[in-house]
Amino acid sequence: MNAGAEARLLIRSGGWRRPTAGLAPGHVQANLAILPQADALDFARFCFRNPRPCPVLDVTEPGSPHPSAALAAGADLRTDLPRYRVYRGGELAAELDDLNALWQDDFVAFLLGCSFTFEQALIEGGIPVRHVECGCNVPMFRTNRACQPAGPFAGPLVVSMRPIPAALVPRAVTITARYPQVHGAPVHIGDPAALGIADVLRPDYGDAVPVQPGEVPVFWACGVTPQAVAQSARLPLMITHAPGHMLICDTLNRDLEG
Amino acid sequence: MNAGAEARLLIRSGGWRRPTAGLAPGHVQANLAILPQADALDFARFCFRNPRPCPVLDVTEPGSPHPSAALAAGADLRTDLPRYRVYRGGELAAELDDLNALWQDDFVAFLLGCSFTFEQALIEGGIPVRHVECGCNVPMFRTNRACQPAGPFAGPLVVSMRPIPAALVPRAVTITARYPQVHGAPVHIGDPAALGIADVLRPDYGDAVPVQPGEVPVFWACGVTPQAVAQSARLPLMITHAPGHMLICDTLNRDLEG
Repeated sequence: MNAGAEARLLIRSGGWRRPTAGLAPGHVQANLAILPQADALDFARFCFRNPRPCPVLDVTEPGSPHPSAALAAGADLRTDLPRYRVYRGGELAAELDDLNALWQDDFVAFLLGCSFTFEQALIEGGIPVRHVECGCNVPMFRTNRACQPAGPFAGPLVVSMRPIPAALVPRAVTITARYPQVHGAPVHIGDPAALGIADVLRPDYGDAVPVQPGEVPVFWACGVTPQAVAQSARLPLMITHAPGHMLICDTLNRDLEG
Repeated sequence: MNAGAEARLLIRSGGWRRPTAGLAPGHVQANLAILPQADALDFARFCFRNPRPCPVLDVTEPGSPHPSAALAAGADLRTDLPRYRVYRGGELAAELDDLNALWQDDFVAFLLGCSFTFEQALIEGGIPVRHVECGCNVPMFRTNRACQPAGPFAGPLVVSMRPIPAALVPRAVTITARYPQVHGAPVHIGDPAALGIADVLRPDYGDAVPVQPGEVPVFWACGVTPQAVAQSARLPLMITHAPGHMLICDTLNRDLEG
């Protein structure tokens, strides 16, 4: 059994209720968004129209809690993430350890790529990732760029920011460009004001990290975008992972290259 | 008005019923697949699970013949392609100049990236593209690699083959890797037998092109895959573009880079 499958069983058994960063190193971790089938095609359209912030790794069959065997064989999305959030009318209504009591026959689950994959590649490429060094969350910002809307889903592109030493910015671009299914190359380098970001030290989500002299703020499309957009659509019901409490996949980070 | 929009109006007026290669140079051309809404979420799932052969640029709202304004503002998918094919039960039932008589309130249209985009980049990069030089169609092969299935959609990966001078193969990889929304980097280089291809001079679709001494056969995931898979699913109704008769977009090829 691979380390990803082992981690899922540990979580399923109740043995892990914390964030998944560092679990099963090298394995892809995925964001989760569950919607009733009535909203699923609109959300799929939104993701196709906005592939940089919304890189979909898999979508489940309506009612099935099982992603494709290629991504996570035998996984059960009702139990294999350590914590879930339930949104009703766009508002956080509950945090739960499992979805056994809530699961519906019309649920469709979207699994989206997460920046953990390209951050591993950056670190292995000798590029420091400040918020990982600090042990805090990546800073994220709502921008002045609108996503392409689809049905009820509309809103601004959300970006994450990593300060990169100027000489290493080209390498950060080429490394992350190799991973189109986890946001790919940056969408913007330098000049936060051009993205409508008034103060790069005051993120809208996550933690502030300083940009040191000699560093350039580099911005990538962020997986918070689809969740933020789905919340502002005020859907009657949407379920997500709790922040940082991801699905651990069989797929390896390196499998997403190219 | 941009050259893509002009080309669509020319086609809409009946002034162009031929293949679209060479029309509005530099503009993205897209494959079309129209399905009833009942099959659309399964097909979307198939595309998400197989992004290399099935790079979706846009999906329409059920019943709407209009793609997103970002892709092709004001386009009408009933009239703006020069020729259409209608499949019933997986069999070709008709070829039509427009879809005005057939359009249904539950139609969902998928627009998929096409290799024309990366072939322009290859040629501009000094890499000869044999079938373009010959004025014939690219050779395509069914492989021994299965796509990840979704609902009724299942089947082998189809690849296109371009013979590339050995010294230029690395450049062909790096150029096409920059275009993940039009199939990206090759899936296989050399050794057709490893893909289950018995004779590289006898393609399953398209025209044969010779592999000369000093050249290596290079294989890319092919946009025929989703059509072939949809046909073998024997859907009651599916409509596509006629081969080579594509939707011309406002988007430029270079906009798909990165």
